[in-house]
Amino acid sequence: MRGLAFSTPIFRQLVEFQSYTYTYILGCEKTRQAVIIDPVDKTADRDIQLLKDFDLNLVYGLNTHVHADHITGTHLLRKAFPSMKSVLSRASGGKADRLVDDGEDVQFGEQKLEVRATPGHTNGCVTYVWHELRRAFTGDSLLVRACGRTDFQEGNAAALIFIGHNYNGILQTSVLEEKNLNPRLTKTEEKFLETMENLHLAHPKQLDEAVPANMKDGEVENSS
Amino acid sequence: MRGLAFSTPIFRQLVEFQSYTYTYILGCEKTRQAVIIDPVDKTADRDIQLLKDFDLNLVYGLNTHVHADHITGTHLLRKAFPSMKSVLSRASGGKADRLVDDGEDVQFGEQKLEVRATPGHTNGCVTYVWHELRRAFTGDSLLVRACGRTDFQEGNAAALIFIGHNYNGILQTSVLEEKNLNPRLTKTEEKFLETMENLHLAHPKQLDEAVPANMKDGEVENSS
Ligand SMILES: [Fe+2]
Ligand SMILES: [Fe+2]
Repeated sequence: MRGLAFSTPIFRQLVEFQSYTYTYILGCEKTRQAVIIDPVDKTADRDIQLLKDFDLNLVYGLNTHVHADHITGTHLLRKAFPSMKSVLSRASGGKADRLVDDGEDVQFGEQKLEVRATPGHTNGCVTYVWHELRRAFTGDSLLVRACGRTDFQEGNAAALIFIGHNYNGILQTSVLEEKNLNPRLTKTEEKFLETMENLHLAHPKQLDEAVPANMKDGEVENSS
Repeated sequence: MRGLAFSTPIFRQLVEFQSYTYTYILGCEKTRQAVIIDPVDKTADRDIQLLKDFDLNLVYGLNTHVHADHITGTHLLRKAFPSMKSVLSRASGGKADRLVDDGEDVQFGEQKLEVRATPGHTNGCVTYVWHELRRAFTGDSLLVRACGRTDFQEGNAAALIFIGHNYNGILQTSVLEEKNLNPRLTKTEEKFLETMENLHLAHPKQLDEAVPANMKDGEVENSS
C-alpha cells in the first residue's frame, strides 16, 4: 500500500487458533518501521503478508518469554525481513539478536516499547509497555482473570492490557479489571503461592520441542 | 465493579472458537448502558459475566443478519438482562423486539450506532456504524480481504472495520486496506458476480438448525 498514508500508529491483534496465542503488530506510520510481539511459526506467512500489505519493514521480532506451547515465528520472519532482529530478555537465558533488561527501550521509528521485567511464569518474562498508546503486552505474566504475578501496581487503571493467551476468546483486559476481579491478585502472598503450587496443570503438548527451539529463535534441532 | 469509573466508552472484541464468530460489547461509561453485537449461544455465560464485571446493563442485543453458522445468544442474554431488546433488520424477515431500517439510530446511553443496509450476503444484512469511535461492525458484509458487497465508498480510510468472521485470526481491518487489497472489491461488477456465483462453498454445518432459530432470537424448535 505504498503511497497510502495512515495518520496514526498501526496496531493489530492476531490469533493463532491451535495454541490460542495472541500476536501483535505495531507500526510507526511515519517511518514504516514495525515490530511484532510473540509471533508463531504456523502463522508466519499470514504475518509477513500483513506487514507487506501495510508497507511496513519489520525491525524487531520480540518474544515476551521462552514459550512452552508453540514455536516462535522469528526465524521465519527473518527470511522475509533480513534486517529484523529477534529480542528476548537476558534473564531468559535464551539466544537472540538483542538481549534486553528491565527499563530498556526498543525503538521502531518514532515509537518505542519499554521493557519491564515481570518474572513469575518464567524467570525471563517481560512485559512490553507502549506508553504512547497506553497499552501493555504482558505475554503470560498476566492473563484475563488468571495467572498473576505483575508489576502494574503503579499502572493507570484505564490502560489496556493485551495478553498472550485466552482460551475463552476474551482478547483484552485492563488494569482496572484485573486489580478488582482477578482471583489470584486479591489473595495474600501466602494464599497466592499455595494456589499457584497446586494448579496441577498438564504440560503443554509442545513443551519438549518448543522450549529448546525458542531458546534460539525457533530453530528446531535437526536429528539427522 | 460498581463505583470504579471508566473515562471512555467501553469496547471489547471477543471470539467464539467453534464458528470463529466475532462478538462485540460496547458500553456507555456514563450511563452504564450497553449493547452486544452478534452474540453466540455457546458463549452467553462468558458475555453475561463480562457485562456484570463492567457493571453494564444490556439494553440491546443486535445481530448484523440471520446467521447460518451459529445460533444467536440473544434469547439467553435476555434471561440475565430482562429489559434487553433484540434487534434485527426489517429486511431480514426475522422476528425481534425491534426491527430496524437503513438510517435508523440505536441508542445506548450517550452513545449510538447508525444502521446501514448492506445487503448481499443476505438480503437483511446491516452494518452498525459507531461514529463516535469511528468503528464499523460489518458482520459478513465485508470480511478481511474477502466477501465484498459494501457501502463504504464514502467511508473514511482510517476507520476501523470489525468483521464477523476470520478464519486466519485477523481481528480487524480498515477501509483503506479493503479498498486496495480486497480482490473482490477491485473487480468489475460482471467479474464480481461471476466470482461470487462460482465459489461453490459447502453449506455451514449448522445451517438447517441455525437459520430457523435465528429468525426468532435463537429459540430452537421443540420437536416434541
Ligand atoms: Fe508461556
Ligand atoms: Fe453469515
